[in-house]
Amino acid sequence: MHIHIVHAHPEPASFTSAMKDMAVSVLRAQEHVVSVSDLYAMNWNPVASAADFGSRQDADYLVYALEQRYNWANGSIAPDIQAEVDRLMAANVLILSFPLYWFSTPAIMKGWIDRVLLSGLCYGGKRFYDQGGLRGKKALVACTLGGQEHMFGKDAIHGEIDAMLTPLLRGTLAYTGMDVLTPFLGYHIPYLDQKERAKILEDYSARLLSITNEAPLPMPSLDDYDHQLHPKSR
Amino acid sequence: MHIHIVHAHPEPASFTSAMKDMAVSVLRAQEHVVSVSDLYAMNWNPVASAADFGSRQDADYLVYALEQRYNWANGSIAPDIQAEVDRLMAANVLILSFPLYWFSTPAIMKGWIDRVLLSGLCYGGKRFYDQGGLRGKKALVACTLGGQEHMFGKDAIHGEIDAMLTPLLRGTLAYTGMDVLTPFLGYHIPYLDQKERAKILEDYSARLLSITNEAPLPMPSLDDYDHQLHPKSR
Repeated sequence: MHIHIVHAHPEPASFTSAMKDMAVSVLRAQEHVVSVSDLYAMNWNPVASAADFGSRQDADYLVYALEQRYNWANGSIAPDIQAEVDRLMAANVLILSFPLYWFSTPAIMKGWIDRVLLSGLCYGGKRFYDQGGLRGKKALVACTLGGQEHMFGKDAIHGEIDAMLTPLLRGTLAYTGMDVLTPFLGYHIPYLDQKERAKILEDYSARLLSITNEAPLPMPSLDDYDHQLHPKSR
Repeated sequence: MHIHIVHAHPEPASFTSAMKDMAVSVLRAQEHVVSVSDLYAMNWNPVASAADFGSRQDADYLVYALEQRYNWANGSIAPDIQAEVDRLMAANVLILSFPLYWFSTPAIMKGWIDRVLLSGLCYGGKRFYDQGGLRGKKALVACTLGGQEHMFGKDAIHGEIDAMLTPLLRGTLAYTGMDVLTPFLGYHIPYLDQKERAKILEDYSARLLSITNEAPLPMPSLDDYDHQLHPKSR
């Protein structure tokens, strides 16, 4: 299998970075082909703008998704985006590796999502959720956070972690058609000792051995909605 | 009142930008003091990094939130961040104005959140939710999206819009202590005609007249949790 890891952490010696390094070696030892986009190391530009397009369907008025579609069809997407699209399309599994910032991805990774998950290629019209352009691929979110596990749940102070991750798991990864795996979450990282951190690395390593066989999270299917996207059961 | 609008759209002639311009004039006509951070126009840097700090508590290992705290106390936060912090702290009301990208903020605005909502000033230790550093301020999300209203709801294809906005409304704005108002959502924008768009501008204008008197959305209170942040009722 081809596995592509998109990683974002401003500190190369961080625990999150250690998780990414371990993922690379564990997966390579399993004979998988592994590539990594280390966004901080690449000085990745996260800002979606007119500069992303080598040609324009409408030179006077920028509708970003529309120009994505036009430039994708035309082969004129900016080279930094095209290189990431190539890595994504070659992959059977996408891993997003990052520390949770404000219960979501750091801006540099949000900008990978905004710029690389092209309209036209990854979704468009009725091509989303189980009809999305990236169906057949799997996606795993592997992230670290400061909060503790008991701070998430039905009556917990931050509510369900699944609700916090909804825009990413459902609204982004599942939206493009990918099979979304249960996220791997490293809780309370800044406050753990070395032994506790080693245990999380061990759990992550064990988890990585099973990702190619795991059942994905349940997500919407277009089959359950009519042509105007109203639920069929109504 | 002082009202600060943080706006992000790559097209100055966009409908979202028209909403922002209208907000400025409507609120000024009400004798409010209005400031705007137009992130694309400012060429705002969204990437949290070591360059954000004029001094370092630990020069060898970057823990971003820890250096925010240290540099805030020390007066050595990068000037572009400090300028935004000053505008935020002067405001009674914060408005975030943006098009929904992947059910969340565009990366350039996520980077305003990551870099400006400083640990130490806006939150830290047990200072979050109703004990957060920005309590007393109000926050309004005003965003545009391509989806239609019937695509959101309990059995709708994208689920509840509140769930999609949870990391922003609860995990970010309420987390810092702000009173979070019901978001203003402009649905289906790219597909509307001029008359339909004018109606949304009119609704937004009417809405802006009431924001200083509105009751905020219910959010967690630390009073309901013990010192380890377990629910007290357990």
